[in-house]
Amino acid sequence: MKLKIAVLPGDGIGPEVTAQAVKVLKAIAQEFDHSFQFKYAPVGAIAIDETGDPLPKETLDLCKATDAILFGAIGDPKYDNDPSAKVRPEQGLLKLRKELGLYANIRPVKAYDTLLDKSPLKKQFIKGTDICIYRELTGGIYFGEKTLSEDGNTASDLCVYTRSEIERITHLAFKSAQSRKRKVTLVDKANVLESSRLWRKVVTEVSQEYKDVKLDYLFVDNAAMQIILNPKQFDVILTENMFGDIISDEASVIGGSIGLLASASVGDYFAMFEPIHGSYPQAKDLGIANPIASILSAAMLLDHFELYEEAELIREGVERSLKLNITTPDLNTKFNHISTTKVGDFIEDFI
Amino acid sequence: MKLKIAVLPGDGIGPEVTAQAVKVLKAIAQEFDHSFQFKYAPVGAIAIDETGDPLPKETLDLCKATDAILFGAIGDPKYDNDPSAKVRPEQGLLKLRKELGLYANIRPVKAYDTLLDKSPLKKQFIKGTDICIYRELTGGIYFGEKTLSEDGNTASDLCVYTRSEIERITHLAFKSAQSRKRKVTLVDKANVLESSRLWRKVVTEVSQEYKDVKLDYLFVDNAAMQIILNPKQFDVILTENMFGDIISDEASVIGGSIGLLASASVGDYFAMFEPIHGSYPQAKDLGIANPIASILSAAMLLDHFELYEEAELIREGVERSLKLNITTPDLNTKFNHISTTKVGDFIEDFI
Ligand SMILES: CC(C)[C@H](C(=O)O)[C@@H](O)C(=O)O
Ligand SMILES: CC(C)[C@H](C(=O)O)[C@@H](O)C(=O)O
Repeated sequence: MKLKIAVLPGDGIGPEVTAQAVKVLKAIAQEFDHSFQFKYAPVGAIAIDETGDPLPKETLDLCKATDAILFGAIGDPKYDNDPSAKVRPEQGLLKLRKELGLYANIRPVKAYDTLLDKSPLKKQFIKGTDICIYRELTGGIYFGEKTLSEDGNTASDLCVYTRSEIERITHLAFKSAQSRKRKVTLVDKANVLESSRLWRKVVTEVSQEYKDVKLDYLFVDNAAMQIILNPKQFDVILTENMFGDIISDEASVIGGSIGLLASASVGDYFAMFEPIHGSYPQAKDLGIANPIASILSAAMLLDHFELYEEAELIREGVERSLKLNITTPDLNTKFNHISTTKVGDFIEDFI
Repeated sequence: MKLKIAVLPGDGIGPEVTAQAVKVLKAIAQEFDHSFQFKYAPVGAIAIDETGDPLPKETLDLCKATDAILFGAIGDPKYDNDPSAKVRPEQGLLKLRKELGLYANIRPVKAYDTLLDKSPLKKQFIKGTDICIYRELTGGIYFGEKTLSEDGNTASDLCVYTRSEIERITHLAFKSAQSRKRKVTLVDKANVLESSRLWRKVVTEVSQEYKDVKLDYLFVDNAAMQIILNPKQFDVILTENMFGDIISDEASVIGGSIGLLASASVGDYFAMFEPIHGSYPQAKDLGIANPIASILSAAMLLDHFELYEEAELIREGVERSLKLNITTPDLNTKFNHISTTKVGDFIEDFI
């Protein structure tokens, strides 16, 4: 297979972890006789520094001209505490999602047996956890109208959802549940929010087309408890943008490290793959950043093109590295100083 | 001291747990020679059933004429899955908060040593946790304009904040931090939301008046992880309404039972005290509902009137009951069938 892949390493540890994912993809290409072409472009703080724009037109054009996007991470503390900054790295990511119509963010959360001891949660609560979160990604309060009054003393954000925005991701979530444990849990705040009531109504309607899938409802505050108290009760979680941001980061603690979690952001025409961790600027260039989330994002990319055998091989390489403790310091209890690159090399060699 | 207390037991397990709190307050009154007068009024689903209104005018008037309100819980599943219901129990609670100007919801989260084993989190992660959450309670997306388009296919909720809404709760949070570990963590989503950027700006400004308190910032997605990964890093958490709803319920898992957590909702003129748990209708009338959160709410009520010795005595009674395993089944690993009432009786006798 021939694939053109846009690589957007971004900020902080983005470049170093993405480099490992590219390395692994190159090994796959060689092993399976595929042709993967990689084109690099800047996004985020680094793009602001270079061009003044967190998503330069060239970057967007490149993304539109490729088959898939491998994304690193964005964000730089120099923008976070400046409420008056006009340009922010995050705008690059948000605009990319919107322009490419990447409306579904898919985040698998698994408790790896080899890592159960790493989790802050007790083993018996998490062993066997296997959740897939479907987070709506191009609507809601992220993209609704924002206002700041002239005197700077009143600010607002609008959370809007339309039926069609809800329907399309709901179909994806139910289809995914059909090949899993056939349960979808809708997380909302329908006892307070009008937009949540629309979600509840539309999802209930769509669920009629999937009689083999059970639909449950959970208020987001209760969901935030249940994910910790009893994560095994979940199969597919479906939720809107803001709740999905919170809930999926929360769920990431189950596995013992956010450095393991990959995600796919898909739409009708494009697909982007990225670790769920952020740019973690404190760790930049220290060789301690865990590349596994990025490498597993590459596996999700291969899945997307139905290269299942290839994706599986990457996952086996990852499991092997975990089992043998060939991991970065965040996970390693045995060896000192196994670097980001070393972990990438190990999985490359495995392939 | 003379106190007029409005008791609003509400729905589900509300009445049974509130009855224990009243019993305990009566014991305190006798022991310390106070005069507490209790007046009851309906709220929530039960008020809808009786009067068609989740917050009848008589109830609101009673609340305004008393010194403090003891609240049970509200909510009934018959309303939850009906997106078209015009009247909902929750409206009673929200209106009460708004009408009484209860803008600050204060939720202490502690890991009780006697209960560390109950928590889904490993002991070493939580031992010593002592957090106080300040959640803004009368603004944000809960109270902003809601719309539903005529065709029913587009719904919206507006999240608005003004400088003065942010300032007043920020002062409370910083004052509280001064008598604690002198650290405030603002939880927001300033990288995306305009309202969060206003929070960050105003809180930063107000913090200048409290030079002895350190101010930290955390994005809500990161906060949802940090609360589980390292709860001991927090002292006072300050946040807006919706994030506070999620974060505080999430934090409740630390202690091993949401049945232990009390809250105070205060404003400039009124104060209300309630367990953070919901109406838990499945447990209604089974005698298994944990009354401790409600009893500790009564202790917070006494604190509010500077009856510190009295409040402390209640807390000692609670700790004693936990130590001796005089607890409802959710916590009890030793004795069978210690009922809601028995726990109340024990603490009453202790006093
Ligand atoms: C960087 C930020 C804008 C982004 C989001 O909130 O969506 C991130 O937290 C994520 O989850 O991908
Ligand atoms: C019942 C509901 C409206 C309420 C809220 O969301 O504020 C509850 O969850 C709470 O936290 O007190």
